[in-house]
Amino acid sequence: MIPRDIRLPPEHLFPAFEWGIVEAEFSGTWMGNAETIFSLSNGYLGMRGTFEEGRPAIEPGSFINGFHETWPIVHAEEAYGFARTGQTIVNVPDATLMKLYVDDEPLFLPTARITDYERCLDFREGVLRRDMNWSTPGGKQVRIGSTRIVSLAHRHLGAIQYELEVDEDAPVVISSQVLNRQDSRPLDEPSGNGELDPRRSSGFGYRVLRSKEQGGEGHRLLAGYRTTNSRMTLGTGVDHVVETDNPWRAQRSITEDLGKVVFTIDAKAGTPILITKFFSYHTSRTVPPAELIDRCARSLDRSVRDGYPSLEAAQRSFLDDFWARADVQVDGPPRVQQAIRWNIFQLCQAAARAETTGIPAKGLTGQAYEGHYFWDTEVYVAPFLTYTDARITRNLLRFRHSMLPASRDRAAEMSEDGALFPWRTINGEEASSYYAAGTAQYHIDADVAYAIKRYVDVRGDRELLKEVGAEILVETARLWAGLGFFGGTGAFHIHGVTGPDEYTTVVNDNAFTNLMARHNLRYAAEIVLWLREEDAAAYGRLVHATDLEDDEPAAWQRAADAMYIPYDAARGIHPQDVNFLEKERWDFENTPNDEYPLLLNYHPLVIYRHQVIKQADVVLAMVLLGNEFSLEQKRRNFDYYDPLTTGDSSLSACVQSILAAEIGYEDKALEYFQYALLMDLANVAGNVVDGVHVASVGGVWMTLVYGFGGLRDFDGELSFDPRLPRGWEALRFRLRFHDRQIAIDLDHERFRFELLEGEPLTITVRDRELSLEVDWPLQVPADELPAGTERLASNQPSPAPATAAEG
Amino acid sequence: MIPRDIRLPPEHLFPAFEWGIVEAEFSGTWMGNAETIFSLSNGYLGMRGTFEEGRPAIEPGSFINGFHETWPIVHAEEAYGFARTGQTIVNVPDATLMKLYVDDEPLFLPTARITDYERCLDFREGVLRRDMNWSTPGGKQVRIGSTRIVSLAHRHLGAIQYELEVDEDAPVVISSQVLNRQDSRPLDEPSGNGELDPRRSSGFGYRVLRSKEQGGEGHRLLAGYRTTNSRMTLGTGVDHVVETDNPWRAQRSITEDLGKVVFTIDAKAGTPILITKFFSYHTSRTVPPAELIDRCARSLDRSVRDGYPSLEAAQRSFLDDFWARADVQVDGPPRVQQAIRWNIFQLCQAAARAETTGIPAKGLTGQAYEGHYFWDTEVYVAPFLTYTDARITRNLLRFRHSMLPASRDRAAEMSEDGALFPWRTINGEEASSYYAAGTAQYHIDADVAYAIKRYVDVRGDRELLKEVGAEILVETARLWAGLGFFGGTGAFHIHGVTGPDEYTTVVNDNAFTNLMARHNLRYAAEIVLWLREEDAAAYGRLVHATDLEDDEPAAWQRAADAMYIPYDAARGIHPQDVNFLEKERWDFENTPNDEYPLLLNYHPLVIYRHQVIKQADVVLAMVLLGNEFSLEQKRRNFDYYDPLTTGDSSLSACVQSILAAEIGYEDKALEYFQYALLMDLANVAGNVVDGVHVASVGGVWMTLVYGFGGLRDFDGELSFDPRLPRGWEALRFRLRFHDRQIAIDLDHERFRFELLEGEPLTITVRDRELSLEVDWPLQVPADELPAGTERLASNQPSPAPATAAEG
Repeated sequence: MIPRDIRLPPEHLFPAFEWGIVEAEFSGTWMGNAETIFSLSNGYLGMRGTFEEGRPAIEPGSFINGFHETWPIVHAEEAYGFARTGQTIVNVPDATLMKLYVDDEPLFLPTARITDYERCLDFREGVLRRDMNWSTPGGKQVRIGSTRIVSLAHRHLGAIQYELEVDEDAPVVISSQVLNRQDSRPLDEPSGNGELDPRRSSGFGYRVLRSKEQGGEGHRLLAGYRTTNSRMTLGTGVDHVVETDNPWRAQRSITEDLGKVVFTIDAKAGTPILITKFFSYHTSRTVPPAELIDRCARSLDRSVRDGYPSLEAAQRSFLDDFWARADVQVDGPPRVQQAIRWNIFQLCQAAARAETTGIPAKGLTGQAYEGHYFWDTEVYVAPFLTYTDARITRNLLRFRHSMLPASRDRAAEMSEDGALFPWRTINGEEASSYYAAGTAQYHIDADVAYAIKRYVDVRGDRELLKEVGAEILVETARLWAGLGFFGGTGAFHIHGVTGPDEYTTVVNDNAFTNLMARHNLRYAAEIVLWLREEDAAAYGRLVHATDLEDDEPAAWQRAADAMYIPYDAARGIHPQDVNFLEKERWDFENTPNDEYPLLLNYHPLVIYRHQVIKQADVVLAMVLLGNEFSLEQKRRNFDYYDPLTTGDSSLSACVQSILAAEIGYEDKALEYFQYALLMDLANVAGNVVDGVHVASVGGVWMTLVYGFGGLRDFDGELSFDPRLPRGWEALRFRLRFHDRQIAIDLDHERFRFELLEGEPLTITVRDRELSLEVDWPLQVPADELPAGTERLASNQPSPAPATAAEG
Repeated sequence: MIPRDIRLPPEHLFPAFEWGIVEAEFSGTWMGNAETIFSLSNGYLGMRGTFEEGRPAIEPGSFINGFHETWPIVHAEEAYGFARTGQTIVNVPDATLMKLYVDDEPLFLPTARITDYERCLDFREGVLRRDMNWSTPGGKQVRIGSTRIVSLAHRHLGAIQYELEVDEDAPVVISSQVLNRQDSRPLDEPSGNGELDPRRSSGFGYRVLRSKEQGGEGHRLLAGYRTTNSRMTLGTGVDHVVETDNPWRAQRSITEDLGKVVFTIDAKAGTPILITKFFSYHTSRTVPPAELIDRCARSLDRSVRDGYPSLEAAQRSFLDDFWARADVQVDGPPRVQQAIRWNIFQLCQAAARAETTGIPAKGLTGQAYEGHYFWDTEVYVAPFLTYTDARITRNLLRFRHSMLPASRDRAAEMSEDGALFPWRTINGEEASSYYAAGTAQYHIDADVAYAIKRYVDVRGDRELLKEVGAEILVETARLWAGLGFFGGTGAFHIHGVTGPDEYTTVVNDNAFTNLMARHNLRYAAEIVLWLREEDAAAYGRLVHATDLEDDEPAAWQRAADAMYIPYDAARGIHPQDVNFLEKERWDFENTPNDEYPLLLNYHPLVIYRHQVIKQADVVLAMVLLGNEFSLEQKRRNFDYYDPLTTGDSSLSACVQSILAAEIGYEDKALEYFQYALLMDLANVAGNVVDGVHVASVGGVWMTLVYGFGGLRDFDGELSFDPRLPRGWEALRFRLRFHDRQIAIDLDHERFRFELLEGEPLTITVRDRELSLEVDWPLQVPADELPAGTERLASNQPSPAPATAAEG
């Protein structure tokens, strides 16, 4: 991978802190990044970390998962089957605005005299807090504190508590607003800095949100909207509670795009002002806006009645529970723990309440990638969820299942059987307008099947299969059986597809795709046969839903057994695709660092005709299907592909790290882990302003647990071959597996495993079986159990048996 | 090739006639096709064959070569280096309109009672004539005749002569108009029937032609326009001469988009009315509209002064000269001669006065393909021009040379050296917005080089090389040298390109491309070395213009010598690209005929992953570089590729025919010739309404001369191995070669060659040398000289010497 600069903001701006991200002074240059990093979200509603003052702001944004506008995709040159319906998440009205005026002077951070500034995103409290002291131009001291919350417990709700005190009497105005920022960028103008970047979303060029309802009373504002094309509806409401001994009055106004409650306060020196602003959003595909604002009103009624402390308490309680399941602890350099927790907190924020939707590539922290759902969900985020809160994985897979009708249509349009899931979508229709790095990624089907199997394996029950899983498996297996063909030598080939590496497109026999398709075909055959034996009723429903023929599983099995897996015997490596090794190597030596990512500096044809890789492809296959490769193959493949891998995709570093750890390349494993860990916090990819890289964030957890923790879970068997980096003293995490809760605690002396809950369980630690029981932690000395790589090299005899830990 | 329906209009509508196309009755269904087929053009100005009445009309259009609007190409998903500037030929104001009212009733053909209708495009006169008798609703008989001309001698000029006579007194109104049809289709709406078809141009969505000047006096109208983005300017003017003994008056009016002179005539029974409408167009990139309408005024002054008969006489004279050089005569089925002449007449119309421009894919007969210049010019049209009027080829190559600056920039943008010509363009910038079937067709560079070599070989002098050719050769050779690379075995490979077959894109080592690139590299090296020896001054200019290094030709030679040409020894065929044979065969058996062309019914990925060919690729290489293949190879390749070739491109049939003729497949050769010959007249491709298929039209000539005439001209040596079809009695044509004029006259008894003009010349007829001198025609008995294929089979001894012909 191309070495990347890792530059965290300096310590004085960004002090280390285990349970939060702290910004110790206002910084105009860091501000855009901070808008992303300080985002709040519950997986349904997300709000970027812009200031209450509204200005300055780089990319203010509030988003609701799945709430999108559609538009006809205009292709510069049309062709049959090109994606037709563009889908873009809508930037909904912004309820964070509370503009402050003292002596009629506005608070404007870039020019204001500010002291004691601190902003903190608190991972345990789940709030974004800001405190500061403002010396006004008139020489008065204003103490300002605000706390913002997007509720994890109540997904339609959030609040801002705004506190203020002046040291001399002063007229104070707080204009609390809900602003519908009409997206007036023309269609072809990208957001942000205006430079070409296909990852950003474009403007709409017209008014997306049409105002349908306006209302309010007292300090309450209500507004209802409908999107122009997709006809989705939105209700939004805010209400305010004022607590102060100062005299004050309020004035309410509302227009199409702007609701305001302006509080005018005769502030006395030393007399605090506390304004709590509750906000609520409700969305629908069918319910009229008038009804949605009624729902907002009811949410607001409840939150005003229960009060702000209740919201904070619920948040704290939710997160206590979350961290008990999901925390990963590293005893090591202080920054590491902080960054790990920020990443894991992002997973919570992206997924916690993503019910009946997917997880967008940026979560709800930006409009980039248009709020689309990709394979990221199944491959990069689902592992974390499956081991910490499988309920969410289950919902995500049900949501994926809801795309089957559209995916069947898409397969037919692509002249195939079964179902072809969209490469990117919100509503289930293919929205990828560049097929070579979009629709051609047929592997999405196998990725979904893989996630189903992992969910079933980790949960330890097969109910989901009966509900939705088997139907997905049938339709995806059919896709592969029809897409591929038996060549002259009897091998089963899959042509004209793109693997994960988007710097090599539309190839024949992409190794990743063929391996994953084989996995998909085999699992589908296995599950269909199992269901036929196991549950006649469920099988009958499956046959009814899919017109399944008796001989299909055998055909899938034949295709799987004959699957062509490219292998270069001379080099002992798996070519990424059948022609990959014939290509000219990219001239890395003469490519300056500022020409990465290559996609922004080279025509696709130039990139495609060279051996150069955007993101882990064969290496990802070796992580997902590690039991199908020997350790020697893994090392040779990694040695070959790693130097070719630019890491221009944020999905790469974590995967490279996991494999590097497995094959004993500790330095590389740590280096890549750093890139993944700090992808956003240190802006490694250079575009954190556009939103959190959610797949990378999921990859951080995978790197910790699979990479350094050495977890493997092929076919539902838990095993550990830990790779604790020398610079770390310990690594601790917990896994939920088969209704059991397991605590793993690794240091350089011993590996300790404890069953916290559930029936006894046998796991494997470096080929040694450990039988875990509740209250009977086991530990094994780390040095007596050489890692696979060392064993490979030293050919040592069997290690000593494991011993019980002290407890 | 997929068999196509050939359905000519029925004889009663479309009688056979050797020197013209005749429409014997008005037909609403045939009308759209007729608009194309009856187009008039001189290569600068083109007018579709719509009626003077203006309605009904399917796609009315007037075009000026190179007069285009530009617009930013919006890609659904942007990427570096994607084409940015769209270019579309503009539908200019229509001067053909002369609307007739008798007794205030308009003439409207679909409902009018018409007798004695005849419309004729006369190839010798170069006019479109229409005669008919109209029985008005009031029962009067109106005889109407009109003749339309677009002058080949005066390219800015044309005229309509409109004659009328009534059998009873009647008020007659003729409203002569110039109408600027604003293209008001939205950007994403295709023209015509509204169905998706990437070959058509889209609407602009805004007013393209801005009115800048209006003027006129008497019966003259003048209007000046400027295009909105490209800032090109247009002047247009019409003037009228009225000859009648009836009382009449005229009223002139002009607005932004419509100029009118309305003639009101008190027509007396039997008293003829003759109105001549002259029209003129002038265009520029820089000259203001006011000056252009002055030019129109001067052109009109002259034409009014000289009169209409003078225009007709000049047209006749121009065409006498043209046919003396370009006619191809076939003694065979009556339709064949008619169709051949229509095709050759189209070549005249497309190219005659295309000075300082290229030849659009549709000539000036339609807006499809946006008026762009492709490789069609160099590969399909240039052969005809080079052998009949090399001056035009020279101009076309000079025009190609004028694209070098933009093409150097494009090569740099594509990370290559030298120059990369645009796949499609008007102004020299790449306008292909789908790179896989556009920019990836790097072979355009070699096609241009090939056309240069042929021009030089056929002209017999190398002056053009010094002027522009050598510079093009240097820059194209550089492109290849940089694009390709030496692989592990030392072979030179070219990866990531698309050959002529657009159903197989972005491949490695496309045989056509590699062969043509080798030809390009070798010729460039040869010419540079020659120039260095031959002309120090010219060489110095070349070095100055290209920064040529001394060692470059040797490097090109090395690349050429090491060029990898895919060859499958087992099958004895040349794979179209290195992976072509590994692909699954298209399921032709289960593809209904109405699913062709496939591109309108299958996603590109589906097409690309199969062995299915849009148009001749290896077969084209065997035609252009026939001396690099053995006859056995040709036959095996043809046998392999022909069944895979859909002929979904109109560029295919002619090429398949030429090769089929060469390898002795007479029936196939004739079948494919029919497709090419009747591509437009019988609407074989189904879209003649969009314009003439100019490449196919050029291919018809190639099929006659190269295919059936058996001409070959490798390295400037003329040879003939005729393949006269059994159903034809004779084939006659003329060639201009090395300042000589040669008449070729072939029948089944003897092949006759006569030098009409110029120094003695040696040609080869079936491996026998004939020395031709003026007034000394030679003929050889056809049966004594077995064709190459027969010789191959029979291994006959050397044939008898040629004998002098009697006449």
